[in-house]
Parts: sequence; C-alpha cells; structure tokens
Amino acid sequence: MTPIQLTPRQKKIVEIVKRSGPITGELIAKEVNLTRATLRPDLAILTMSGILDARPRVGYFYSGKSAGSLLVEEIRRMRVKDLKSVPVVVREETSVYDAIVTLFVEDVGTLIVVSEGGFLEGVVSRKDLLKVTIGQNDVRQVPVNMAMTRMPNIIITTMDETIHLAAAKLIEHQVDALPVVRKIINDQGLEKLEVVGRITKSNITQLFVELGEDK
Amino acid sequence: MTPIQLTPRQKKIVEIVKRSGPITGELIAKEVNLTRATLRPDLAILTMSGILDARPRVGYFYSGKSAGSLLVEEIRRMRVKDLKSVPVVVREETSVYDAIVTLFVEDVGTLIVVSEGGFLEGVVSRKDLLKVTIGQNDVRQVPVNMAMTRMPNIIITTMDETIHLAAAKLIEHQVDALPVVRKIINDQGLEKLEVVGRITKSNITQLFVELGEDK
Repeated sequence: MTPIQLTPRQKKIVEIVKRSGPITGELIAKEVNLTRATLRPDLAILTMSGILDARPRVGYFYSGKSAGSLLVEEIRRMRVKDLKSVPVVVREETSVYDAIVTLFVEDVGTLIVVSEGGFLEGVVSRKDLLKVTIGQNDVRQVPVNMAMTRMPNIIITTMDETIHLAAAKLIEHQVDALPVVRKIINDQGLEKLEVVGRITKSNITQLFVELGEDK
Repeated sequence: MTPIQLTPRQKKIVEIVKRSGPITGELIAKEVNLTRATLRPDLAILTMSGILDARPRVGYFYSGKSAGSLLVEEIRRMRVKDLKSVPVVVREETSVYDAIVTLFVEDVGTLIVVSEGGFLEGVVSRKDLLKVTIGQNDVRQVPVNMAMTRMPNIIITTMDETIHLAAAKLIEHQVDALPVVRKIINDQGLEKLEVVGRITKSNITQLFVELGEDK
C-alpha cells in the first residue's frame, strides 16, 4: 500500500535515515551531495506523510510507518455508527414460516429476534432456517426461537466500536451480520441490550466499493 | 480519505487553486502574503501528493484527486485471481436435499452448479433453497436445477477482473457470491464457461480486515 509514489531521491533519503537515523538534515544532504535547501521539500513530504519523524536537535528518524499505514489509520478510525443498517426484527413467538417470509420481504440474510421494547433475544440466519425446514417440522407451528442463536453465543457490536473490529468479528465467527446494541440498565438493575442496528458483510463490501471510487 | 494531513496553509492554497486555477506560484504567494520561496515546500507536497498538478508556463491547477486517490488506485489494482476461493460445486441432477447438505458440510452460502467437465450451468443461494423447502415439495425428489439461477442471469467474474469491480457487482446485483470463470471454446466452436473459483462478500470483508491491519 503506497498512496504516495516516492521519487528515487526520497527513497534514497528513507534508506539513509533507516540505516543511520536519527540523523540531521545536513548530514543527509551531505550523503546525497545536495544542499539542505534542495532537500527541504523532500524532507517535508517524508515527515508530513508520516514516513519520517523529526525531532528538534535530534534529527530525522524512521517512523516504521509505510505511507500506506496512514490509510490503515483511516480505515481503523471509522465507527459502526457511520455505516450501520436498520435492524430487521421479529418477535420470539413468530413462526419459522413467517420469519422466512420476512426474510424475503425485507430482503435480508439475518433476522434479529427481540422481546417487547426491542431488546435482543436472538439472531436467526438463513442456515438456521434451512436446518428447520429440512427437518420433519411444520414450519408454521415451530416458533423462530427454536431455531435462533441466543446469548451468550450472539456476536454483537456497539455504535462506537470500529468498523474494522466489527468486520474482524464477522470473519472470525463466520457470521453474516452482527446486531448493533446499546446497553441499558432496566428498573430491576438488570443489563438489557437494546437493538439499534445491524452490520453485515454487505455493508463492508459496499464500503470497500466506496473506498475504491474516485470522489 | 486523507492519508496526508494538510496544514491550514496547504488547505488555503488548495482552495485558491480550486477557485482561480490555473494560477502561477507567484499569484498564489501574493494571495497568502508570503514569498514564493516560503510556499515552495507546500506546493511541492501538494503536487507530489497528486492534489495539484503543475504545468510549465501555465501554473498550478486542481487535479480533482484527493490525497487518498492514490490509495484508491491501489485498491483498484488488485485482481480476482489474488483473492478467489475454491468453488464448491454440485451437479444439476443433485437433489435440493443433497445440495443443502453440501452447503452445511462445505460451510458456504452459495453453490455453483456445473455440468460434466466443470462448466457453469447455474448458481444456487441459501434463499433459492429456502424458497423450495417452504413450498410443498419433497426436497429429496426435486433436482437443484429447479431452484438455480441460469445464464444469462448469472453474474460472473474472471481472473483478471479487479476485485473492486467484482465487489461492485456483488452490491449492484445483491448476490453473495460470483463464480470466477474462464472462457473456453469447445470442439463444436461453442463458448463454455469453466468454473475456476468464487468470490464472496466474505472474501471482500476478509480483505478489508487485512487492509486495516498493521503489517
């Protein structure tokens, strides 16, 4: 990842600083047989792009960052609240049949199961529903809570978590979607998880497409 | 996306060039009440990062690129062959029941249906399979080709297509996976599509996670 194409001279400077840093601008200039003034724009670019660091009375040293690592920081800065979709929810007593209909009508891959007040009870995927339908069940009689994943096995995220971490959870736990929750303490002092959104592999793919577009 | 943090002075210069470009360095210097020499490092950074372009005897003009657009080029350079997974395939005569079992055993979301020789015949998703199972069908009797999408409705990709374009197809056509195909002309002079891989939203999400990791 190199968002900035360095010139051969700039690459040479990076090599010198990697090898001999911390090193003053004067000494770098001497090594490349140019004046300090000539090098000033190059050194400015290298420090502003974060490839080199400079400290007064010490000189230049190599930050260990590639030019691409600032992009990395950008990717890691985005938050779930900037990307989340609305959650598509059903109630626990919904039948598997009605849950499947909701899946098609809302055109989603994962349903979030909630209790009254919108609190997280479960998550049900297309595979969970397929498993029930190929069993010998009457899917109009079986409630969706027979097919869903429950806490503590639901992988969740929150509004302030980074999208990068949410994406890593999707991959690590091999799920297509995470409910975005807000923690609430109810009247009895119990912690409840209010469902406020969802993050899916589609969201991440969409973001990847946007990152690659010229704006 | 700004891998380079511009200083307020550099931002001001960009604004001036956006408004009045093409404009000479002298005129920019005049507008900000500084000498041409003082501005030289700023102008060097802005042109080298690709934000401004400069032409001899014309002056500076705004390139329309953000500092991030070089990253954009990096994202757009990656190819399907660098990322693809192996395809998970079934034959047309496979029953819907056996297709669902394959889905669970291979732990994938989409199956690619092939004829003898591994040529593309169809694609079948979890939703396609769900639709059959909630109908009044005996899924051990129904062949998978009754549930699959066929050409010309299958969205495909090739080894040399960019991952960015493949990701855009996933989003635009709202599918979870694309078969990666190689075009073959058979003995009869007919074009056939040999299935050589698949690209999924999981692949893109995984790539996003890797892009955000410090290497």
